[in-house]
Parts: sequence; structure tokens; C-alpha cells
Amino acid sequence: MLSTRKSNWGRWGESDELGALNHLTPERVLDALRLPKTGKTYSLGIPIQRSGVPNLDYRGTPQRLTMINHEDEAMARANGGAPGVGANEDQLIMPSHTSTHMDALCHVYSDNKIYNGYPADEVTPYSGAAKCSIDKVGGVVGRGVLIDVAASKGVDQLEPGYVVTAADLQKALDDQGIELRTGDLVLIRTGWLEDYLANQGEMMPQPGIGLEAATFLAEKDVALVGSDNTAVESIPFDQNVYLGGHIVLLVENGIYLLENVNLAELAADRCYEFLLTIGALKITGATASPVTPVAIG
Amino acid sequence: MLSTRKSNWGRWGESDELGALNHLTPERVLDALRLPKTGKTYSLGIPIQRSGVPNLDYRGTPQRLTMINHEDEAMARANGGAPGVGANEDQLIMPSHTSTHMDALCHVYSDNKIYNGYPADEVTPYSGAAKCSIDKVGGVVGRGVLIDVAASKGVDQLEPGYVVTAADLQKALDDQGIELRTGDLVLIRTGWLEDYLANQGEMMPQPGIGLEAATFLAEKDVALVGSDNTAVESIPFDQNVYLGGHIVLLVENGIYLLENVNLAELAADRCYEFLLTIGALKITGATASPVTPVAIG
Amino acid sequence: MLSTRKSNWGRWGESDELGALNHLTPERVLDALRLPKTGKTYSLGIPIQRSGVPNLDYRGTPQRLTMINHEDEAMARANGGAPGVGANEDQLIMPSHTSTHMDALCHVYSDNKIYNGYPADEVTPYSGAAKCSIDKVGGVVGRGVLIDVAASKGVDQLEPGYVVTAADLQKALDDQGIELRTGDLVLIRTGWLEDYLANQGEMMPQPGIGLEAATFLAEKDVALVGSDNTAVESIPFDQNVYLGGHIVLLVENGIYLLENVNLAELAADRCYEFLLTIGALKITGATASPVTPVAIG
Amino acid sequence: MLSTRKSNWGRWGESDELGALNHLTPERVLDALRLPKTGKTYSLGIPIQRSGVPNLDYRGTPQRLTMINHEDEAMARANGGAPGVGANEDQLIMPSHTSTHMDALCHVYSDNKIYNGYPADEVTPYSGAAKCSIDKVGGVVGRGVLIDVAASKGVDQLEPGYVVTAADLQKALDDQGIELRTGDLVLIRTGWLEDYLANQGEMMPQPGIGLEAATFLAEKDVALVGSDNTAVESIPFDQNVYLGGHIVLLVENGIYLLENVNLAELAADRCYEFLLTIGALKITGATASPVTPVAIG
Repeated sequence: MLSTRKSNWGRWGESDELGALNHLTPERVLDALRLPKTGKTYSLGIPIQRSGVPNLDYRGTPQRLTMINHEDEAMARANGGAPGVGANEDQLIMPSHTSTHMDALCHVYSDNKIYNGYPADEVTPYSGAAKCSIDKVGGVVGRGVLIDVAASKGVDQLEPGYVVTAADLQKALDDQGIELRTGDLVLIRTGWLEDYLANQGEMMPQPGIGLEAATFLAEKDVALVGSDNTAVESIPFDQNVYLGGHIVLLVENGIYLLENVNLAELAADRCYEFLLTIGALKITGATASPVTPVAIG
Repeated sequence: MLSTRKSNWGRWGESDELGALNHLTPERVLDALRLPKTGKTYSLGIPIQRSGVPNLDYRGTPQRLTMINHEDEAMARANGGAPGVGANEDQLIMPSHTSTHMDALCHVYSDNKIYNGYPADEVTPYSGAAKCSIDKVGGVVGRGVLIDVAASKGVDQLEPGYVVTAADLQKALDDQGIELRTGDLVLIRTGWLEDYLANQGEMMPQPGIGLEAATFLAEKDVALVGSDNTAVESIPFDQNVYLGGHIVLLVENGIYLLENVNLAELAADRCYEFLLTIGALKITGATASPVTPVAIG
Repeated sequence: MLSTRKSNWGRWGESDELGALNHLTPERVLDALRLPKTGKTYSLGIPIQRSGVPNLDYRGTPQRLTMINHEDEAMARANGGAPGVGANEDQLIMPSHTSTHMDALCHVYSDNKIYNGYPADEVTPYSGAAKCSIDKVGGVVGRGVLIDVAASKGVDQLEPGYVVTAADLQKALDDQGIELRTGDLVLIRTGWLEDYLANQGEMMPQPGIGLEAATFLAEKDVALVGSDNTAVESIPFDQNVYLGGHIVLLVENGIYLLENVNLAELAADRCYEFLLTIGALKITGATASPVTPVAIG
Repeated sequence: MLSTRKSNWGRWGESDELGALNHLTPERVLDALRLPKTGKTYSLGIPIQRSGVPNLDYRGTPQRLTMINHEDEAMARANGGAPGVGANEDQLIMPSHTSTHMDALCHVYSDNKIYNGYPADEVTPYSGAAKCSIDKVGGVVGRGVLIDVAASKGVDQLEPGYVVTAADLQKALDDQGIELRTGDLVLIRTGWLEDYLANQGEMMPQPGIGLEAATFLAEKDVALVGSDNTAVESIPFDQNVYLGGHIVLLVENGIYLLENVNLAELAADRCYEFLLTIGALKITGATASPVTPVAIG
């Protein structure tokens, strides 16, 4: 165990594949529905495109290719289409971990095990993950909480590589007058993504949470942690523990991660509590899904 | 014009690319937030996978490929990973119009024009759609209404090829004691998808709405029409008008379409009014996005 | 061992990854250069396209997508292109084992080992095959020999599922007045592919060689065996040994396989001896390559 | 016309799609078969892989993904495979213009026309090129000639951006004691690719032929021009004419281009005349094909 607390393995049964999303009971959903005050809809996704967004080289460039357009109108005509009538369609090639995406619990393993002790070798090339794949998740609805660490520190963005501490999180929560609750969907703002999108600077290093902050969040029994950076955790990794934040949250505690989340507008509106919904694509066997999280303030 | 009513072109300005989603004002969103009674979350997506779901041949099979698993742990080790630690990741190849998906307003054109009169030839191979692409949409939140035509007619599924009429819709609404309102996100149940998923029968023909029903919905000023079939409209097309339902709703009225929607659970619960949220992926220039719509009952 | 003969493991050294292509010495190449009599060039590949050719469902449909055409001329213009000047380019998605293709020695394993005893688990998702991948092959040049079994039996095509025997091969060779030599690149005609391309019938079953014929070819020390069918060997497999022909040739003897080869024109010309050249794509780590073999008669 | 000579449009008929490959008569092929002296086989392709080779960003990274390996052995077992028996297969995603590749005559257009005057707008997203696509080519066999400009100038590689002149070509030919003949497959060595592969320097600028050299080659009635660089022609383009070399050779004269050709070994062996064979993949409608050209010295 990397975190100092008892893990969530077994907490929801030996055959559980849902992890901390088990916290999202209908009661908590009803509570969350009462949070919005303005009715303003926030779209927290960033574009999926060949460049301009944080694409990691080894994953290959996401590509949208036009499969059919008006130049193929003969296909429509052959099916009875009138002149001037047709369809436009695309073919997509993209990593599951592209742009704004939600990690499945099978994404990372430690000691050769994923969440709940399932063996790491049950992810095969053709079939993907046998356990804890993203299609087990479906729809997520709950109380969204923004923790604006950058604002709490009075900066536009945290320094590249800065390791966010538990104290940083607590101070920001105090500044905002917010308390974390069981099952919260927590979004942590570092300011990094806004700067990257605006200035197209270096991808690395990046600010993000460290091991202590990850443990702090796990102890609060949150259901999901997102951030406006590529790995939620800092890069380089805190204490040089490779994927340490992922291990504490995803592997040990079944807490989902949401990466490259666009938090600019929520922050600008000082919208710290909101209804958050996420519709992960039901890609059978996948280890993540690109998503556009939708918040209602 | 296929429909008998005035179109929505120009209604929200000459440069509008959002169409009927303009109806989704914060006030309507706040109203919709008051609908849920149970707090139950419904995930309305179907799987994205190589077979078993309605994949159209000409679009190519959606593929999830494992890009990295424990067998590539050397990559993690090279970055300082401890033995037994690593990541699982996928590469995705899929049509934008795969499984449960939301059509962008640029998806279909008629008289060489898409919604609001933009020219059809502004969709190019490399850049995609210049106007009304799916990335312009982002997050959708509103009042979801299920119109269970199959239940209203007392059948498990409508006959393959059956053309749903305006009277069918009105009768089902009456049976359910529901009225349509401006900006509604309407989901029409034919029962076809449940049968297809269960029995893997023929893809075509399919029941769906006809031209009159499409006009009826447009007159109600709904924002989106979804259905548990491949094209919302019937196949073969009503009155043999190729993509006629798409033309009435998408092209003439800027009303979005949602296809292959899983309505089984909502129907089983007789949940006819609900909060519906959709997070379309912000794929730059794309003509659709796979989605997992999330309803809260 | 499936075949009754000593395998080729170790024959060219413990670290050999080339297998029977070691037979293709410069002397044998010079001999092969003297074979052509007419100078006629034969292209032995079949099309790579979405339909009409034997595509196996589980591999996904090969797709050629236009990435850039004249509608993206703005890209050329931005780089100084004159009006009316531009480029057309594609993006390709296809299995390595598509249409006419050459199997690498790592393609099949038996007793958890590929050719020369390398462990089967050295093919990983991200890096592919560590040993005997197709990029180790490069260019193949040698004496091509057509064995027209269909013609020898006086039929257009062998019966679906027919298992070609060693005696069938010997009789056809005798009919043709040809003897096999060490290092030959042998192409066996069943007639199946011509019928399939012309009539678009059922993919399976298919005629092909059986275990005895495979052993016969291995004993002749040929370097490659191709056929006008999907697996060189018959489907269903001879004696129900799954991939038995692959095991005898590829695994035990390091003899390459060439599948879906178009032999119609060679057969029509009764061209039984020829120079054969194959340029396998140097796809790092791949288990096969689509190819267009070129014969000169 | 960019070149000062009459173009080849119409030379082989109004409906010709083959261009200068029409020169490759059986007689010329028989002549070429007499050239090899050593029987040594040269593989002129470079690897297709995610990095390390000259991949242009806008085309996306070529990806080889393992589709099936031993971890999916259950699939083999379900088909009757014995324990320890299975197959390894890949899925490929790559531009048609990747690594070593052959341009189809439809690749570039000028004055809105491709070779032989076919309209540029006959390349559509779904179907690709109606005319002069790479699948019309198939197998190429002829006299290969290496023109080692770098060696002729006594340098390892020409300066980045250097524009090779007609005089440079003639001097190198004279140094080598070689004359060009009708139908030759000419490979021009700049040394750039060897340096790039070894040192992973900057992709641009690159040495290559200029407009005058292109015209010189067209006047010699060669069938194909290849080079050890990305565009055959220099980058930046000679006289700032965007794709000028492509226009002279490909568009105006139907002379094929072969790019990123590995000429190191031929040059080291001073092998200036050889049999050259190229098997372009028969990708229906494609604008190019990755190839591994095979030379026999």
C-alpha cells in the first residue's frame, strides 16, 4: 500500500468492479440535484484534435477523418436520395486516453493487481480488460466540487512540477467555505491547462497532486478526482513514485480519475459546488473513455 | 421544405450554429432539475464493440485495440516504475456515428445546404465541418421525455418498417399523461433495439418516425429527438424520401438526433419525465459523437 | 512436432530469425534471373478494399480514407501553393493480414514457441514481436514455381474444404514437367480465389494443402509457400489440427506463407517457372505484411 | 506547364492511367533481367514505425497495434486449438504516404488537373481516386539506375535545402559511366536519409532535385524517379514553386515518384545499374502505397 489508510478492496464485495462509484446512491444524487442555483451549463471537455491540446506522443495523434461528404453523394443517390441531398460522416482514430477522459479502474496496476485485487494480466490485446473496464461505469451523477488551488494561492497557475499537498487542498476548501463529503466528484484546478491551451508551451513538467493529497482525498471517500492536467498527479511524480497518485486513488481505493478537465469557466464563476454528470462511452473492455463532463451550476 | 412549417433558419441569427439547443436556457435547465423523483441514474448508451450491436457495414467495424498492457511493463520500468507497476491503454478506431451517438447539425444536407443555410461543401477531408460540427455543442442538459410508442400500442416492438405517425406520438403522450414543451429532449421508444440486442436478428427494416411525426415534433419546438433505432426515422424511409426525417428535424429545424438509444430501463420503470444530460465529445470538425446519455429519474 | 521430419530449428544458428529465406543465396538468385522467357510482368496481389475480397470479420474491414483532397487546398495555399495546385493523400486502417499478405515467422506459435524456439510471449501490444517480425525480411527474390493443382485435376476450382495431398502436388508437378528445388517460392493454385472474386460466394470452407502436403514441401526445402486462398492450408483444417499447416511450415520449418495470392494470370499463361520478388513492408514488430508479389515470366 | 517540354498527356491515349510505366515493355524487362552481376538482393525500404523515421506530423503517426497475441489464446482454443497454439496478428494505422512509398499519378494536381487531364475533383472521401489510383499500378519491373550525387560531389550528404541541378545529375552519371535510357527507374542519392536515420536531426530543410533536374529527367523519358528524401524534390521548393518537382514529373509527365528510399547499401557497393522491382499495394482508390522496393545487383 502506498497510502497510509486501509484500501477499498473488498469494501463493496469481492466481485465489485465499480469501486467508489458505489457511493453514488440515489439519495446522494437527489441531494446533488438541489445544488444548482443558476441553471448554467458548463461543458468541461477540451477539443479532440490533431494538435493544440495536450496529446502525448507515444499514444499517436487523434485523427478525425471525413469518411463521407457531398463528394460521395452518388452513394446517397444510389439509395434514392434526391440531388443535393446527402450525409457527412467521420471515421475516428484516437487513444482512449485522449483529451478530457475518464480512467477506468483497470487503467493502472500495482503489485500486478488492479483495483479489488484482480490480476493485471487479464487485459488482452483482442478483448481488452476482463474486469473494471470503462463500459462497466456508464453514467456518473453526483455532487461536483471544484477545489481551486491556483486561486487559493493567488496565482494564475501553479508552478510546473509543483506538488499539491493536503494542506493546499484544505486551505482552498476553507477559502471557498466548502467541505468534502462522501461520494464527491472532486475537480482540482492548477491553472496549467488554461495556460497550455493559450500559450502552447511545454507539456512537461506539470503541477498536480502528490501522494499525501491523494491519501487525503481517499480518506474523504470521494468517488472521483479530476484535474486540469494530464495525470491528475504532478509530473515528475511526487517522491519519484511512478504513477503513485494513480496507485493510491485508482488501484488501492477504486477512485476514478478525470484528466485534462477544463475548469476555467467554473473557476471564473467561482462555482464551487454543482451537479456533475459524466457519460463514459461503453467501449467494451476499454481502459478509459474520452468524455465531455457536464456541470450545472 | 419537406415539413409544412416555417423552418428555423435565421431564428437564432444568421451566424447561429447551435439550432434548437438555443431553447435550453438556464431557466429551463432549473425546471428540469426539479423533475427527478427517485434519484436513479439511467445510462442510455449501448456498447461500442466489434459485433452484437447495430454496426452498419459501410462504416467499418469499431475496434478497441490494446495499445499497452502488462506485457509492455518495460516502458513503465524505463520511466522509473517499480516491478509489478504499469498501465493499460487502448487505441480506438470507430465511426463518429457508432452505437449510441448524437448527430451534429452538419450531418445531413438538403438542397446542398445544412442547417441555417450553410453550404454543404464546407466539410473537407482534413478539417471536417467548418460549421455546425459536434464540437460546437458540448454539454446538453434539459427535460427528457420518453414517448413509449411500443407500450402505447401494447406491443414489445413495433413492426420492422413501421412508420410512427403524429397520432401515435400524441396517443402515447396522452396515455402517459405528459405534454411536450419547448426545448424538450424527446426519446421515442419503438422496442426495436431491445429485440435486436437480445435476438441478433436482421438490422433492416426498422420502425421509426415518419415525416408527419417529424413535423409534429418540430412544431412542438423540441431541441432533440432520439430513438431506440439506427436512424430515428423508419427504414425504409417514409414515402421513400431519403433521409426525410433527418431533413425535417436536423436540416430544416436545427433539432438534434440521438440514435441507438437504450430506452429499456426507463420504459420498464415507466419513467417518462427526467433530467437528461448529454456530453458530446468535442471532436473538432466532426459530424457526430458517440455518447452515453445520462438520465436521472 | 507435427511433421515427420526434423525441424529447421537451429539449422541456421540459434539466433536466426530468417528461416528458410536463408536458402536464397546470390547464386540461387542469379539462377532465378535466367528463368523469364517473355519478360511479362505479373502482379499477384488482390485489391485491399472494404468489400469484395476475402476479409475476415474478426480482423475488421480495411479502410482507405481520404485525408486530404482538393477541398483542403487551403493547406497548400498556406504553404505557397498556386491556385489549382494541391495534393491528395489517404489514411489507411488495415490488418497486417489483409488481402494478399506474407506471414512473418512469428505469426503462429505451437507449444508456446515460434520458429527456432523463441518464446511465444515476446509479442507485446505496444512493441509487437521481438523476434522474427516481418521487418526482418525485407526483399525476397527467388525461383517462383506455380503448382496448378486445379488444372492438374481438370477442374476450375477444387471443392470447398478439399485437402490437397502430397500426391496431388507431385502429380501436378509431373504434369507440368517441373521439379522443386531448394529455396523455391512455391505457389499452389486451388482456383478458389478466382471463383470467390468472381462470384462472391461463401468464404468458408476453402480447399488448401493438408499436413502431408505441408511436410512434402518442407522436405523439399522450399523457402515459401503461397496459395490462392486465405490460409494456404484447407479450412476446415486437415485432421482438425488447428493451424496445422502453419505449424509444419512456419513454426517447425521457418518456411514463409503467402496468402490470397492471385494466380489466375500465371495459370492462364501456363507460366510454371518464373522470377518471383516480394517486398514485405518493414513494419517494425509486425506479424505480417500486405504485399503485391511481382512475378516475371 | 512548368517544364519546358511537351507533356505526356495523351501520349498513351486519352484514357491512359498508367503514364510512364507504359515504357516498361516486356523487351525492356528482359533487358533489365540481364543487368545483375552478383545476385545480391537489396531491400530499399526503411522501417514503418512510430518514431525514428521521417514521419510528417500532419499525417499522423503510423501505428502497428497488436490485435491478437498469446494472451488471446482462448480464441484459438474456441476453434479447436491445442494448448500452447495460437496466432499473433496486428492492426495497422498509417498514411499511404508513409516511410518508403510510391506516389500514384493522382497524388498531386495542378491547374485543377492530375496527369492526363483528369479533373482533380474526382478524388472523394469514401471512394478515393477514380483515376490513376495506386491500385492501377501493381507490379513494376525495370532497369534501376542509381545516380549518386552526394558521391559525385565528394560529400556524405548534400547540404540541407540544396537544389540538385541537371548538371549535377549529368556529372554523376558521367562519373559512374552510365547513361539513362527510356523507361529507367532512377534513384537519386542525396545522402540526407542516411544522416537523418543515424543522427535524428531536423526533418527540414532537405536537399533534392529542382525544376531543371526534373525536366532533364522527363526529357530522358524515365518511368520513375526516387530519392533518399521525403519529396524527391528539395525542400524548400526550387524557386518557391510549391510541389514544382511533383508537377513536372507526376502531373505533366506521368512519371512516378518514390520517396524515402534507402540507397545506402547500393551506394556502398557502387551498384549503379540493377534490376528494380516494386510491388505497390493494390489499395483501391489510394493516392500512394508504402512499398519495399527490391533491387538485384
